[in-house]
Amino acid sequence: MNQNIPLSVPNLKGNELTYVSNAVQTEWVSTGGPYVNEFEKVIAEYAHVPGAVSCQNGTSGIHTALLLAGVTAADEVLVPTLTFIAAVNPVRYIGAEPVFLDCDDTLCMDADKLKSFCTTQCSMQAGRLIDNASGRHVKALVVVHVFGNMANLEKILEIAQTFNLKVIEDATEAIGTYYLAGPYIGHHAGTLGFMGIYSFNGNKIITTGGGGMIVSSDVELLRHAKHLTTQAKSDEVNFLHDEVGFNYRMTNLQAALGLAQMEQLEAFITKKQENYQYYKECLADIPNLRFLQFRSDVRSNHWFYSIYLEDGFPVSRDQVVAEFSKHKIQTRPIWGLIHEQIPYKGFRAFQIEKAIDYQRHIVNVPCSTNLEKQDIDRVIACLKAMAG
Amino acid sequence: MNQNIPLSVPNLKGNELTYVSNAVQTEWVSTGGPYVNEFEKVIAEYAHVPGAVSCQNGTSGIHTALLLAGVTAADEVLVPTLTFIAAVNPVRYIGAEPVFLDCDDTLCMDADKLKSFCTTQCSMQAGRLIDNASGRHVKALVVVHVFGNMANLEKILEIAQTFNLKVIEDATEAIGTYYLAGPYIGHHAGTLGFMGIYSFNGNKIITTGGGGMIVSSDVELLRHAKHLTTQAKSDEVNFLHDEVGFNYRMTNLQAALGLAQMEQLEAFITKKQENYQYYKECLADIPNLRFLQFRSDVRSNHWFYSIYLEDGFPVSRDQVVAEFSKHKIQTRPIWGLIHEQIPYKGFRAFQIEKAIDYQRHIVNVPCSTNLEKQDIDRVIACLKAMAG
Repeated sequence: MNQNIPLSVPNLKGNELTYVSNAVQTEWVSTGGPYVNEFEKVIAEYAHVPGAVSCQNGTSGIHTALLLAGVTAADEVLVPTLTFIAAVNPVRYIGAEPVFLDCDDTLCMDADKLKSFCTTQCSMQAGRLIDNASGRHVKALVVVHVFGNMANLEKILEIAQTFNLKVIEDATEAIGTYYLAGPYIGHHAGTLGFMGIYSFNGNKIITTGGGGMIVSSDVELLRHAKHLTTQAKSDEVNFLHDEVGFNYRMTNLQAALGLAQMEQLEAFITKKQENYQYYKECLADIPNLRFLQFRSDVRSNHWFYSIYLEDGFPVSRDQVVAEFSKHKIQTRPIWGLIHEQIPYKGFRAFQIEKAIDYQRHIVNVPCSTNLEKQDIDRVIACLKAMAG
Repeated sequence: MNQNIPLSVPNLKGNELTYVSNAVQTEWVSTGGPYVNEFEKVIAEYAHVPGAVSCQNGTSGIHTALLLAGVTAADEVLVPTLTFIAAVNPVRYIGAEPVFLDCDDTLCMDADKLKSFCTTQCSMQAGRLIDNASGRHVKALVVVHVFGNMANLEKILEIAQTFNLKVIEDATEAIGTYYLAGPYIGHHAGTLGFMGIYSFNGNKIITTGGGGMIVSSDVELLRHAKHLTTQAKSDEVNFLHDEVGFNYRMTNLQAALGLAQMEQLEAFITKKQENYQYYKECLADIPNLRFLQFRSDVRSNHWFYSIYLEDGFPVSRDQVVAEFSKHKIQTRPIWGLIHEQIPYKGFRAFQIEKAIDYQRHIVNVPCSTNLEKQDIDRVIACLKAMAG
């Protein structure tokens, strides 16, 4: 009997148990304790930033970054439509309005359409980008490094500078992704914009169970992020607070897990790359599909693998997912487009074309770091049977 | 050399390590896994409610409850001024306006002043309580069971019914507190209002590191709470969402800890009660102070102990805290009043009197469940030296 092949699950065979046991045995399991600081330090060093602020998950990190960008209920924020909805929900937590943009062939935000939106739909007034239709100030931009691929930051950051937009990098899927060439060579996803956010959710390349990390090159912003995420106490003894704060703290128990995971991140990325190459070779023979690539000028973490089923593929995408499931192989269609979903139907979407096409054709296949070649062989065999 | 005596720290000498190790070894550390469901079930049975929804902390639970109560940016919410600020911040997350009320001698919301506010400051219009001054709909009420004492729910629930207010019970400090007499005999704090919230922060009587639980007697409300706290997915496979959801999920790792802690909760309460009695006996000799009592018609969990320093006490409250600190004993003044703090100075406060007095005079003394008699002896000796 074949075992289940899950899509993307944790891999905890390093020092996880040792560190977590230490946290329990020393009774430092809550928001105090040495692992939180240590985990923040390790992430900061890894991503070459002066500091990092741990938080509860990617969602809370993006929420914090939007607040620090000064986004209010009166503003607009440019967001992708093809991503997990948690990249956009924090815009609504604040009461601001999202404007949805299209993707390019990396599945990340289309820089040309971003520029087109800013130039044709908006005008600069006293240094602020104003949406002509709504009269609202377009204050920020959430760019997502989808599936570990690097978005076109070269162009996006230039456009953002021109139009005075704060760039929040949703790098929740892209820890370990960095430039190999070009003006940003050596720079990590998440570290080039206003603020960046990593996620350590259970399906990510490394996990803390649930957790996130805010990074920035601006130490004052990091200090403020720490303040906001820890209830904004201005006086610890007398319980005084100078802002409306949040309880977005990571616990020592989560950080214990994260620290052990960070020791293995580079090995995980190597394994992801190897499995990606093996998939690629095996898929080359199967007609009517494409294996989506990562940028060649970027060291991607290769988090998630995407197969694009051409219209000629004899089985529909949804049937492919169902058929895999019968064979105990977990796959999934890419996310539903956010601008088409109930809570976002009323908001503006600008020239969405490629996202619609990719949304209809992509299936994501198993990519856990403990995936072995024989697992991939099963995935391929199942797909070949469908390809006829 | 004397050891530090902390104020309130975790006590993890039961099955915590076993369950947490199991979560790590089975690689179920994130939002899936058996412990979350099991922990929710155990809490529901303990509090005699049909279900419970785990969340990340008390703050996220209160936020969720306010959203489910239908509170919007146009509304007002009645809140206490003498409590931890996280009971009030979620009102502002939504953009609603808080109105601050006074406490009674249990340190919880004063029911008579609540009634007075509703009758003298508001009027009923088409079944809605309208604040005459602001014209806003007063839609809900956050009542906090301070330090494990039960608020006067007998009166508060009756007033809330009269004025059509949804009562959110902040029972973050009061798991295990229930009525021993009266109309609500046997009912637990958190289970009598619209929704109730428990906290498992590191300083609480039981801990999950960080975590919370939403309880209610309404299963449909609980279903909705689970939906909102887990990203509001309406279709798991296709990533469709029918509301703006939140990532407020508890992880299996946290729940593993919680389950082990729940096995010890009644023993912890017994220990807290014994230590409270010992403090009480020792303090009886010291002039110019009072040891605050818990309601005698309630089985309180005795979470936090409060000493009220009369004006005749020769050392000021803040100096008392500083002196304890010199002797390596961690104490604290009660929270700063919320209506006087920077983010809330602009909002309405109604007849705040007792809260001001208690705020000036209370010092909270060590109360951990692993506190021993010789620790209490040290606290008492230090206090006696100050009393002269």
